[in-house]
Amino acid sequence: MTTTTPLAIDALRGRYAAAQRLQLDLDMTRGKPCPEQLDLAAGLLDGLGRDDYRAADGTDCRNYGLVDGLPEAKRFFADVLEVAPAEVIVGDNASLSLMYDVLSEAMHRGVPGSVRPWGREPAVRVLCPSPGYDRHFALCEHLGAEPVPVALDAAGPDLEEVSRLAADDPSIKAIFCVPRYSNPTGITYGADAVRQLARMKTAAPDFRVIWDNAYAVHHLYSDHEPLLPILAECRAAGHPDRPLLFTSTSKITLAGAGISAIAGSDGNLAWFRQSRGRRTIGPDKIAQLRHLRFLPDRAALDAHMRRHAAILRPKFEAVGEILERELGGTGLASWSAPRGGYFISLDVPEGCAARVVARAKAAGVKLTAAGATFPHGRDPRDRNIRIAPSFPPLAELRQATEILALSVLLVAAER
Amino acid sequence: MTTTTPLAIDALRGRYAAAQRLQLDLDMTRGKPCPEQLDLAAGLLDGLGRDDYRAADGTDCRNYGLVDGLPEAKRFFADVLEVAPAEVIVGDNASLSLMYDVLSEAMHRGVPGSVRPWGREPAVRVLCPSPGYDRHFALCEHLGAEPVPVALDAAGPDLEEVSRLAADDPSIKAIFCVPRYSNPTGITYGADAVRQLARMKTAAPDFRVIWDNAYAVHHLYSDHEPLLPILAECRAAGHPDRPLLFTSTSKITLAGAGISAIAGSDGNLAWFRQSRGRRTIGPDKIAQLRHLRFLPDRAALDAHMRRHAAILRPKFEAVGEILERELGGTGLASWSAPRGGYFISLDVPEGCAARVVARAKAAGVKLTAAGATFPHGRDPRDRNIRIAPSFPPLAELRQATEILALSVLLVAAER
Repeated sequence: MTTTTPLAIDALRGRYAAAQRLQLDLDMTRGKPCPEQLDLAAGLLDGLGRDDYRAADGTDCRNYGLVDGLPEAKRFFADVLEVAPAEVIVGDNASLSLMYDVLSEAMHRGVPGSVRPWGREPAVRVLCPSPGYDRHFALCEHLGAEPVPVALDAAGPDLEEVSRLAADDPSIKAIFCVPRYSNPTGITYGADAVRQLARMKTAAPDFRVIWDNAYAVHHLYSDHEPLLPILAECRAAGHPDRPLLFTSTSKITLAGAGISAIAGSDGNLAWFRQSRGRRTIGPDKIAQLRHLRFLPDRAALDAHMRRHAAILRPKFEAVGEILERELGGTGLASWSAPRGGYFISLDVPEGCAARVVARAKAAGVKLTAAGATFPHGRDPRDRNIRIAPSFPPLAELRQATEILALSVLLVAAER
Repeated sequence: MTTTTPLAIDALRGRYAAAQRLQLDLDMTRGKPCPEQLDLAAGLLDGLGRDDYRAADGTDCRNYGLVDGLPEAKRFFADVLEVAPAEVIVGDNASLSLMYDVLSEAMHRGVPGSVRPWGREPAVRVLCPSPGYDRHFALCEHLGAEPVPVALDAAGPDLEEVSRLAADDPSIKAIFCVPRYSNPTGITYGADAVRQLARMKTAAPDFRVIWDNAYAVHHLYSDHEPLLPILAECRAAGHPDRPLLFTSTSKITLAGAGISAIAGSDGNLAWFRQSRGRRTIGPDKIAQLRHLRFLPDRAALDAHMRRHAAILRPKFEAVGEILERELGGTGLASWSAPRGGYFISLDVPEGCAARVVARAKAAGVKLTAAGATFPHGRDPRDRNIRIAPSFPPLAELRQATEILALSVLLVAAER
């Protein structure tokens, strides 16, 4: 760790004051696509054409029905999630809603294998690899499940801890995973982690792996790490009902107007259909048809994601360069260099994250609240900051990252 | 009641056998719009145009956000539901989903005014005016609320019975109402019924009127009965949190790709937003924008509904004519002559509905299962049959209604 001379502190304060005088208003809070990315999906805003409302099997997509979604939409997501089309149910905008509904139903009536509704258990705990996705934690808390943080390492959750907790405590009912380009650390689960999740003994007979594969095809580079298919691994391990898979097109086409999917074993899908069929007469099949016309096959999807990468890669690399230039070798910070996804995770000295975020904010840079990447908004070491590079224009992103780095230096110097 | 001679029975059997020989396959099971109705919304399938993605306030509808929906979409539904725009939250396809979510959340954590979550009460009962909508009953049953049938009369539910049950039994937590063109009897709630629902004493401090105004603007004729605005009535009666209003465009634009709305007091909406904000980052705002471009104002909506009426009215009238011709004066049946909505309700002699439906089916006419219009699928008098005239082409509808009437005559004769 570098030592800071009074002279250096004065220099940092001078730079910070200069930044404040710019009266910036920069936002790096959320993983929103930028307008240029949304423009890539302009074809979705084109009309289907008045006579183009039939699915391949002749279904009139304008009318009621088909709780499972269109067969071709099931195929689309089956390919993304590496499962069979029959193992997919297609939903409307937002896979978060599907996860919410799954946990909600589990609380109401349990899942296949449950002895009783989760809501009738003395307690329900859900393992949350952290740093992780704040909306997962919020969903658990809202529905009365206690999110339990477990460490997230470079190749997945700390499986020793996960296995121990799951084996010992029957109130541990699930684990939330973002297996590829994890939010926010960007790691992808290694083969060992996936296999252990599939094989481990659990005290709860109805334990579920909530596999939120939000960034399944969201690569920044042409080479990308393999991810073992969780459903096949669980099936091979004799736990076919363990995983529930989720994904969506929110960060493929339009963040506010995508389609989503849940996948799992026949038993899990039959269970999910029971509530789905009570909740709706069918999903928005016209939205599905629009997506299929726009991304008719895997080649179209891959080409589309390369166009996203061409926009995002320079942003991610700019953040990395500036952090390296400003903080490299200081020993004050470490950060991720993800190969995909939407976030960069920055660790600052313990006890400093909240003050860094406050400093940045006072200089016009909004960051996700410190602690947000941990359950209950409490980072026990107060050191993790989530950087969302996707939305701001490159010039603003550079400016914001410089102010963030400056805030780290200043907070560290003032300790 | 007419008596039937052996000769007459033989004649009926001959006609029925002749109908069977036609090997028809006609479907009057569900209230689906017909293709000609869906064609009316062809403009929704036209593109927005690549540059038309901004709401009036500048919101980029392609991106995340706005859990409440677009301000102009709130205004659209506020007008339909006769509430203020601030009293509306706009949802995705299917208002049934909003009702499901409301009851689900009530079970999880109660509603404003609850002493505890409904799911922690010894029992939860929901009054269901019957004949009524089978999906309301199914939703209650699935979520662990017991649907309790109450009689539905020509001007609304039997308010004497409703008031007594609601006043005596704290487990009575809600009533499901289709206040305009009720499914299936087609009645509209009179002023007295609305006022009594608003004013009546309830043993449960958190009683809710689930106001499913699915057919709010679905008039078949230019003259239509007034319906008192339930929110204003409840507010005036000192029960602002009592009503929760629902509607959708499912039977305005596209049954499989509409938008929906929930409305209510500030307290109810704040409560609903808590779960909504955990479940989604925002609804499909592009779908909202498409609807607003297609139906920009009330005049456009009213003109559009007149086009629906022009298609539906001849179908409803054909069913009425045939029932009158075949069954009029026999004393065997009575049926509704609705001024809007989607259904005709047919009452046959007690104990005969299931057999009539079976007879019709054996002659190639599928009807909604007898009993479906009552909770648990059990019509205590086995006499109500729901006719859905919207979907079949007029010629088929005539044929199907003739076979239905013939089935009534035959079953009655064979008693």
